[in-house]
Amino acid sequence: MSMVQLGIVKRNIVRADRVAVEKLSGFGVATIHEALGRVGLLKPYMRPIYTGAHLCGTAVTVLLQPGDNWMLHVAAEQLQPGDVVVAACTTDNEDGFFGDLLATSFRARGAVGLVIDGGVRDVSDLTEMEFPVFSRAINAKGTIKATLGSVNVPVICAGALVHPGDVVIADADGVVVVPAALAQRAADAAEAREALEADKRARLAAGVLGLDMYKMREPLAKAGLRYID
Amino acid sequence: MSMVQLGIVKRNIVRADRVAVEKLSGFGVATIHEALGRVGLLKPYMRPIYTGAHLCGTAVTVLLQPGDNWMLHVAAEQLQPGDVVVAACTTDNEDGFFGDLLATSFRARGAVGLVIDGGVRDVSDLTEMEFPVFSRAINAKGTIKATLGSVNVPVICAGALVHPGDVVIADADGVVVVPAALAQRAADAAEAREALEADKRARLAAGVLGLDMYKMREPLAKAGLRYID
Amino acid sequence: MSMVQLGIVKRNIVRADRVAVEKLSGFGVATIHEALGRVGLLKPYMRPIYTGAHLCGTAVTVLLQPGDNWMLHVAAEQLQPGDVVVAACTTDNEDGFFGDLLATSFRARGAVGLVIDGGVRDVSDLTEMEFPVFSRAINAKGTIKATLGSVNVPVICAGALVHPGDVVIADADGVVVVPAALAQRAADAAEAREALEADKRARLAAGVLGLDMYKMREPLAKAGLRYID
Amino acid sequence: MSMVQLGIVKRNIVRADRVAVEKLSGFGVATIHEALGRVGLLKPYMRPIYTGAHLCGTAVTVLLQPGDNWMLHVAAEQLQPGDVVVAACTTDNEDGFFGDLLATSFRARGAVGLVIDGGVRDVSDLTEMEFPVFSRAINAKGTIKATLGSVNVPVICAGALVHPGDVVIADADGVVVVPAALAQRAADAAEAREALEADKRARLAAGVLGLDMYKMREPLAKAGLRYID
Amino acid sequence: MSMVQLGIVKRNIVRADRVAVEKLSGFGVATIHEALGRVGLLKPYMRPIYTGAHLCGTAVTVLLQPGDNWMLHVAAEQLQPGDVVVAACTTDNEDGFFGDLLATSFRARGAVGLVIDGGVRDVSDLTEMEFPVFSRAINAKGTIKATLGSVNVPVICAGALVHPGDVVIADADGVVVVPAALAQRAADAAEAREALEADKRARLAAGVLGLDMYKMREPLAKAGLRYID
Amino acid sequence: MSMVQLGIVKRNIVRADRVAVEKLSGFGVATIHEALGRVGLLKPYMRPIYTGAHLCGTAVTVLLQPGDNWMLHVAAEQLQPGDVVVAACTTDNEDGFFGDLLATSFRARGAVGLVIDGGVRDVSDLTEMEFPVFSRAINAKGTIKATLGSVNVPVICAGALVHPGDVVIADADGVVVVPAALAQRAADAAEAREALEADKRARLAAGVLGLDMYKMREPLAKAGLRYID
Repeated sequence: MSMVQLGIVKRNIVRADRVAVEKLSGFGVATIHEALGRVGLLKPYMRPIYTGAHLCGTAVTVLLQPGDNWMLHVAAEQLQPGDVVVAACTTDNEDGFFGDLLATSFRARGAVGLVIDGGVRDVSDLTEMEFPVFSRAINAKGTIKATLGSVNVPVICAGALVHPGDVVIADADGVVVVPAALAQRAADAAEAREALEADKRARLAAGVLGLDMYKMREPLAKAGLRYID
Repeated sequence: MSMVQLGIVKRNIVRADRVAVEKLSGFGVATIHEALGRVGLLKPYMRPIYTGAHLCGTAVTVLLQPGDNWMLHVAAEQLQPGDVVVAACTTDNEDGFFGDLLATSFRARGAVGLVIDGGVRDVSDLTEMEFPVFSRAINAKGTIKATLGSVNVPVICAGALVHPGDVVIADADGVVVVPAALAQRAADAAEAREALEADKRARLAAGVLGLDMYKMREPLAKAGLRYID
Repeated sequence: MSMVQLGIVKRNIVRADRVAVEKLSGFGVATIHEALGRVGLLKPYMRPIYTGAHLCGTAVTVLLQPGDNWMLHVAAEQLQPGDVVVAACTTDNEDGFFGDLLATSFRARGAVGLVIDGGVRDVSDLTEMEFPVFSRAINAKGTIKATLGSVNVPVICAGALVHPGDVVIADADGVVVVPAALAQRAADAAEAREALEADKRARLAAGVLGLDMYKMREPLAKAGLRYID
Repeated sequence: MSMVQLGIVKRNIVRADRVAVEKLSGFGVATIHEALGRVGLLKPYMRPIYTGAHLCGTAVTVLLQPGDNWMLHVAAEQLQPGDVVVAACTTDNEDGFFGDLLATSFRARGAVGLVIDGGVRDVSDLTEMEFPVFSRAINAKGTIKATLGSVNVPVICAGALVHPGDVVIADADGVVVVPAALAQRAADAAEAREALEADKRARLAAGVLGLDMYKMREPLAKAGLRYID
Repeated sequence: MSMVQLGIVKRNIVRADRVAVEKLSGFGVATIHEALGRVGLLKPYMRPIYTGAHLCGTAVTVLLQPGDNWMLHVAAEQLQPGDVVVAACTTDNEDGFFGDLLATSFRARGAVGLVIDGGVRDVSDLTEMEFPVFSRAINAKGTIKATLGSVNVPVICAGALVHPGDVVIADADGVVVVPAALAQRAADAAEAREALEADKRARLAAGVLGLDMYKMREPLAKAGLRYID
Repeated sequence: MSMVQLGIVKRNIVRADRVAVEKLSGFGVATIHEALGRVGLLKPYMRPIYTGAHLCGTAVTVLLQPGDNWMLHVAAEQLQPGDVVVAACTTDNEDGFFGDLLATSFRARGAVGLVIDGGVRDVSDLTEMEFPVFSRAINAKGTIKATLGSVNVPVICAGALVHPGDVVIADADGVVVVPAALAQRAADAAEAREALEADKRARLAAGVLGLDMYKMREPLAKAGLRYID
């Protein structure tokens, strides 16, 4: 009944439609965030561990306890090809929950990346493996395996609510979550938005001012903007 | 009469002398900051969005409201070749005020970069465009266009006072502002300083100690430094 | 008698065994930290100034005063080939204590890098020189030479106690300190650990689950983990 | 379908049972948080604006835009006696969204306090009014009324998910949210826990050690704890 | 010519009109900030060192170097009755620049308080003396007297530009600066604003909604706000 | 051999001389810090949980794991009248490690307070009990009892090295540690310093300037200070 349940692993989750996920993978985080109506963004402290890291997949969620990565091992068994592990913690903690061994295991199960509101280590290895990770910290400090969290319950990760099966997209601009049921609609909206942007970009490149293109002069004057010399 | 005026766009600003700007572009931020007498540096949280970003130009200043980038569109019209947009905000805010469309427009007007005490997005595109940006955050969150700020009024950006027309230089070490009237003098001082440094560098590389080169042994002893074994 | 002594330079320090240092240089920070029993790690805000920076050497310690880099010049004379300068400050301060001139001097004395709980500048030059630096900030702001700190006293740098002569290893995962007397033991333990990891990595890559490899299923059940559908 | 909906005011919400809320008001935040199974706590940066502030009531939720408090005015109309306004923002923002005029209005409608992931002002007046507020900042900076957010949609406030009608309890230890449907159960569990604590407190006060009272000696020995002299 | 000049003490400054200062002392920081058009506020990290601290006076400005309070001693001589010392630093630094001895000296010269973008100590004594201080930190760490800053030059203190002679007002809501030339106008505007607020407060207390009092229903509907059940 | 040892409880520690501790309890943190030569101060983020909290006693040290307060229970048995518990953590963690039950137990054993580089809860109860606590956070989040740390090993708490038996003094200005062997000397130096301050205070109160009392005019002139009108 509670939103967050501890000590639970949900095995059957409804993943977002594969075709929609595939389509979403073609757009950037900023575009999808706009297409969604400006919701679902994780806080901007979530950063890629190497330049160029990006990912798109369906969320297998994990709720961790501070200094304890037991549930990441539990989560590995629940992974399917195309999944992204999204790990939250019951408190702010920057320990190194994840490294190259877990990445090897996750990849062997088909996972395409990790989003974690905590720390990670073995960054050079992960970079060489090209295993994309978005985290709040890089930290060599290891963790224990002693306390239960959960797998595949809804979690709040870096300020955003993520349900298992949601689509998670991450690139240089950050991380955004698309509810599974909205994946197709978001992909279509992103496509439409991008089409519009191409035209705008061309006009701006040609020297047209946004003031004119967006017809801002009148509302600016109405708001009281004054030009002086 | 107030220092900061809202709802104003100043059209005619006095830009720093072009020759002095050109000369300043040949020096690093640390050198110019020293040459200026250690003033004019923005806070060190201002970082380039990609490795190697650097810029030098004359400031067109913008005062933004939180979550609102309307004034960046207004500023575009005021840009001249060689300008750098310097954007401050009336409050601490890390929304993504700027992306590739505005960059396209700014570049079409001749601008050479952006310094913004806020967030930006479309970082991959900006990197590909090689449009240099120094910001306090990277954030996919978009902004609205509803509230007036100002363009070309003096602003406090990341702790430094910037007047329109001042020279702004940014590189891997941060961002520094040179008052327009001091541009030539600062460039000359930077040149003199750099000449001195070349000689010092050669001597240090040859194994001469700073203790001897800077004649520090006597003042250190006077201050009470004791050597023990 | 006090732990921290101001105004003192200790000339004769006992450096960790060179063979052990050489062996430690072959392992990563995360591995060494684990091998040591999870102690000796500096706080994760200490970051390399360029991608790929890494170092391993014996510590020459420096205690700085805020905004004052005098003691770095004093330290230069105490450097021997293979040393790493480890600089702490009596208060939190992000000024640019160090730049390319000091790097040139340190390198001429045989130093292999710098770990500083403060700011540094001339980052482009340092990158070109491939002089590895791990710092809490990048900052063009210069410092003065007016107040005594110490050289080769024990210091607390970014939350870790460092004695002169200890081994300092730094890479993309952070910075770890190995007490001089433990260097050989830590190197051996790191070697043993790495051997074990290779085997684990292979099995995980082959699809074996950590749950089985680490025999976690029983303790998880005992802790009350429930699987639901 | 999206979790967060912008531009919406939900008028009919199901508030937690009044008797359960009344019972919960008799317990502290730490006790309720434990009784709930350690979930529902807001991040610890949320602090009371005056010593002794505390509140317990049913949530009317508000989603704000940065620098804009329009939705707080909209929320006032939805308030019923015993409600607490819980305000989140679409981005991190510390502007002063709330002051004594809104407090006067909220109180006139029967509200018993405010929890806001943003800034507030008129702190002296609010203290004199004894209107309890828990916020992330105190800030005199005012806000505008230009952009739609929502009222009575689920929000993530300081890292916790809050649904309209949930019970919100705040005191010197922080802020906790109890889902409406769990209010009675949480109140009963808090009562049970507090009963147990009274006995423990008495024994500890009499000098009994927790080591003995909680029977920790055996598990500590098993975990390898060693006593040395 | 530079904005910030080091090593300078300006003796003759034009203080704001005493009558206007006196009038401003009757209003709160939030009211004055609004009256000024929402400019001149210091960042909200500036907090009073004891509950109830408040001040209003004319600024004697000080630019400090990190870890060095020499200029506060120099400033003492420039103080006149009714002055407030406003101290900025050339870099972020939280050392304890100020304590009860300097407070004794400042008070003997007629100063009515201190605003400092740094740390202070002897907080119990300052509280007992009822000497109001607004600072970014409390810190027992002492400072030296070795490097020149300046007195009575324009400074940027906690993000706001302060000229010597400006009016500084601080209370539980923060710190605001009124340019000397605007003091009377700001006081009049604050008075007018407060008169309006009294009436609004009465109506809101009587249960009138801000929605109606501010005529917000139509613009909200136009913006697209939807009420659902 | 390592500095930090996990899984160890040292039973026999050498506490600082009781007479010296008693004498130190009569001085403030700032005075003792100066008397010690400006060493031993904890970082200024350590704050009292209630106004007026202060303590002075001999350290029983604890090294905690994140989210785990087991070792505080172990420490209780080692307490003697006049002790202060000084708790560090192997990583930055703000969970609520300590509350009124542990305070009751500690007090029953004679402890006079707690200094903890982590969070605490039950703040109202602790305030009512007048049990002084200095912490980095207030947080209702509870902890588990699963992982070994240590008791009475040297720890680094909030940036300062503390050995068991050292004297810890805390008041409104922060927390300072005096090595046990220096306690008497520090107390004498504090006494001497305070005697000097009384005279200085009287002279400053009488209007004598620090410039004259400290004979600063000549060194300021030498440093280049210029007075302008």
